Amino acid sequence: MALAITGARLNGEQVCLRTADGLIEELGAGVEPRADDDRIDATGLALIPGLVNAHTHAAMTLFRGYADDLPLMEWLEQHIWPAERRLEADDVYWGTRLACLEMARAGTIRFWDMYWKQAATARAVKDAGMRAIVGAPLIDGKDPDQAPRLLAKARRTIEEIEEAGQGAVRPALAPHAIYTVSEPSLRGIAEISAERDVPVEIHLSETEQEVTDCIAETGLRPAQYLDRTGLLGPRTVLAHCVWLDQAEIELIVERGATMVTNPVANLKLAVGGVFPYAAARAAGAEIALGTDGAGSNNSLDMLDDVKAFALIQKHVAADPAAVTAAEAWEIATGQRAELVGGGPLAAGAPADFALARLDAPSLALGELDAGLVYAADASAIRMTVVAGRVVYRQGDRAELDEVLAHAREQAARLGLVRS
Amino acid sequence: MALAITGARLNGEQVCLRTADGLIEELGAGVEPRADDDRIDATGLALIPGLVNAHTHAAMTLFRGYADDLPLMEWLEQHIWPAERRLEADDVYWGTRLACLEMARAGTIRFWDMYWKQAATARAVKDAGMRAIVGAPLIDGKDPDQAPRLLAKARRTIEEIEEAGQGAVRPALAPHAIYTVSEPSLRGIAEISAERDVPVEIHLSETEQEVTDCIAETGLRPAQYLDRTGLLGPRTVLAHCVWLDQAEIELIVERGATMVTNPVANLKLAVGGVFPYAAARAAGAEIALGTDGAGSNNSLDMLDDVKAFALIQKHVAADPAAVTAAEAWEIATGQRAELVGGGPLAAGAPADFALARLDAPSLALGELDAGLVYAADASAIRMTVVAGRVVYRQGDRAELDEVLAHAREQAARLGLVRS
Repeated sequence: MALAITGARLNGEQVCLRTADGLIEELGAGVEPRADDDRIDATGLALIPGLVNAHTHAAMTLFRGYADDLPLMEWLEQHIWPAERRLEADDVYWGTRLACLEMARAGTIRFWDMYWKQAATARAVKDAGMRAIVGAPLIDGKDPDQAPRLLAKARRTIEEIEEAGQGAVRPALAPHAIYTVSEPSLRGIAEISAERDVPVEIHLSETEQEVTDCIAETGLRPAQYLDRTGLLGPRTVLAHCVWLDQAEIELIVERGATMVTNPVANLKLAVGGVFPYAAARAAGAEIALGTDGAGSNNSLDMLDDVKAFALIQKHVAADPAAVTAAEAWEIATGQRAELVGGGPLAAGAPADFALARLDAPSLALGELDAGLVYAADASAIRMTVVAGRVVYRQGDRAELDEVLAHAREQAARLGLVRS
Repeated sequence: MALAITGARLNGEQVCLRTADGLIEELGAGVEPRADDDRIDATGLALIPGLVNAHTHAAMTLFRGYADDLPLMEWLEQHIWPAERRLEADDVYWGTRLACLEMARAGTIRFWDMYWKQAATARAVKDAGMRAIVGAPLIDGKDPDQAPRLLAKARRTIEEIEEAGQGAVRPALAPHAIYTVSEPSLRGIAEISAERDVPVEIHLSETEQEVTDCIAETGLRPAQYLDRTGLLGPRTVLAHCVWLDQAEIELIVERGATMVTNPVANLKLAVGGVFPYAAARAAGAEIALGTDGAGSNNSLDMLDDVKAFALIQKHVAADPAAVTAAEAWEIATGQRAELVGGGPLAAGAPADFALARLDAPSLALGELDAGLVYAADASAIRMTVVAGRVVYRQGDRAELDEVLAHAREQAARLGLVRS
């Protein structure tokens, strides 16, 4: 099926975008729809690149609003982990379906996921029509004896995710963190990643405790230690990156790894620090943005996070010009991190994009970038297209109602009921 | 006209709410609609108190996305002030109509405004069916010789706002700030406020410069100086309150003035500090929340600001439990500031409230307070009712389209065009 989006605004022009085989075939002011195209009249809509959520735990939509406002360890140990031990594939499937819809309705086209029951995640992504990079959390409790078993599991999950995702999903390796995975396992994961050309997602330097512990145990700061394991490379995405020092930033840039900032989750869990964006940008880092899971955000709406990113960075720099709207928008759409994102919309690129309403109060006046970053919410998104298929159309509720009914059932099964 | 809202969820019950003469006449599980009530089926909707925006400059919707990401003084001197000098009543009228709609669509029922052409603001509020407390900015360039003229203007604007607002608007006195108004004028405004029982809105301690200058000129910190003028009293609302010290907090509490925090605007303009909420709460302060104008936020959506408030306070306290969702929600709905807000929804209270969709992804699972504070956006609001009249119904676009067409015209007239 080929789409023809007609009359959309792009950089001050009215353009037509035609898709074929999931790619943008033609895009421009002079492009004409063909007779057998499925036409979408985009008059009054802006064509925008989709948002890329570079770090989340999608199925945690089931945990939204469950046990909020608690200290991190109490939240995890007394609430989240006990509930997660009861997780079954159907929970993850419906939680992820809900996450996909939430992301699509706010213009997100692709996400990086790390969660249990990864085959169910991959199936949900495929069924939702989204794209994702999916990794199973790899944890060995820092017991080196567990490494062989963990690495066997790592290899197995790659096949499993690939099979379940049927082309919609790229498998990743997701060692949870340096404080939950032994060094032999980290080294082994680096080898599998290189051998299979599979990306790696890992939490890095979310809390100051992680840094203190790492130095105490290894004499190295987290990024330096990760480098020793071979995992700091161009295939690796580092979530959080709050407590990096200058030498670590330079090392990460040298190795070509991507830094992902999760501003809302960092503020909500009160990790105490802020991603050192100014230093990372000055060093030429690859930078992307993520929501983290709905348990610690509690939204998967990247329009929320791009605003929070710009605001907190302006605040810590004590400079309203520290981040511009255009710059924040590029980061949120993956255009500042090669591994995570893509280039601008152009012929030959994947047909992944959104259409934003220029008659939304947030976008009706003023610069479009500023409107998207500082003012827009999901109600400004008219439609989201992934791989040339409409995955969200404002006003259609049938899929959402079905998914919500299932998600409610699964949440009830897990005992996550409203008080 | 009397409304009967049936089947709404409130505190775990299905209730009916009946209005009469702009008030809630009956509310409860056993209440039945009467034959001639205008019935609204609220099955699947939660009845929630409306949000109260305790500090804004409504008509600045026209300036949204115009000249963002600039240092404060460059933004004001080179962009905002020159454009504001061209403002006419129609600009303010349509800018405010747009603001009213934007606020209503995100569940806001009432706002405190400070802006030029105040009669146009008042007319717009009345025509939109909203409620507001409206003050004309009072500025004499700190020239005491201007005081008689300014005070005459202050008295005149009270009448003018009252007349234009026709009951929808309560007039206020809005001395801009201690650094733009002379002491004799501030004293005179305090006298008029007492004599006429009119509330006062003033910016206080938004920037550190204001504190430094005030100490240099008067030997007092801003709140102490304001107290000397007689303006620090129970009728006064203090916007921003970023750079207060402990003694000032205690003084403000003793005098019964209300502190309004504007977290998004403070972060966006990078004032460098954060409202000292923990100290203010511990001292028993009256506290409310505001968006500030769309020029410095850029949204008037209080659901955005309540999340930003909770996040930034958790961050500065380095404690995820520093603010709970329930507490943030009370602040955002005016329930922690007697002058600004009201009590909970109950018979006899104004019929000002919203209906939230329990089938919105943000509110379908988990605690309602957490959903509203951390996850909901405007698309979760089904309907907003002010004084017993529906002022916003999701999906109705006729009024918005009309208002946007006018707002675009006015913005073009002012030269605020998209590049």
